[in-house]
Amino acid sequence: MKITTLKETASVEMKMEGAVNVLKQVPLSKNDGAPHFSFRVFTIGINGHTPYHQHEVEHLNYVISGNGALVRQGGQETPIGTGSFAMVLPGEMHQYKNLSQHEPLVVICAVPKEYE
Amino acid sequence: MKITTLKETASVEMKMEGAVNVLKQVPLSKNDGAPHFSFRVFTIGINGHTPYHQHEVEHLNYVISGNGALVRQGGQETPIGTGSFAMVLPGEMHQYKNLSQHEPLVVICAVPKEYE
Repeated sequence: MKITTLKETASVEMKMEGAVNVLKQVPLSKNDGAPHFSFRVFTIGINGHTPYHQHEVEHLNYVISGNGALVRQGGQETPIGTGSFAMVLPGEMHQYKNLSQHEPLVVICAVPKEYE
Repeated sequence: MKITTLKETASVEMKMEGAVNVLKQVPLSKNDGAPHFSFRVFTIGINGHTPYHQHEVEHLNYVISGNGALVRQGGQETPIGTGSFAMVLPGEMHQYKNLSQHEPLVVICAVPKEYE
């Protein structure tokens, strides 16, 4: 069993091409013995966004805090904010954007452990 | 892709033996096409708790709000609250208890899709 918080979890800048002002933390992962999947957390700063991209694994997301948009295939933007849940399936184009000028957008992003 | 909130998600009473005053919601699951795992949410009311039990799959948890305890093997209680992450591995005894007299303890509980 592991019990932790974001304050106790190391933070690294997301280096992927297309990412702007995004920090990554991995509070629960295969390094803790996770059998199937990991919980990552992205903190997207003012004017920040994740890459507009797709990949072969799904994302299960929960928005811890903030206000922004989830960009979908074709560029359609759906408002998301504190309390939103989202599932991005394999191969679906997607991007998280922070639309607040006052606070970060903080998002749990659960993925299969092979991915993180 | 699915985007939703708890307000849009049906809620049912948790009927498992040992559960007291617990509501279950499943905002993201295999019914939405999840390839590997599901996000459930348990809302544990005043004086409520989940069963003290173990099972063959892991839980990955995030506490959305509230204050309580995660009971571990041997009855040891670890305080948890808004912002806590926890990973309960297969076979580990565990129980979530709400210790607030004022608000529910609301917990994301991610599990392999075969379990929910």
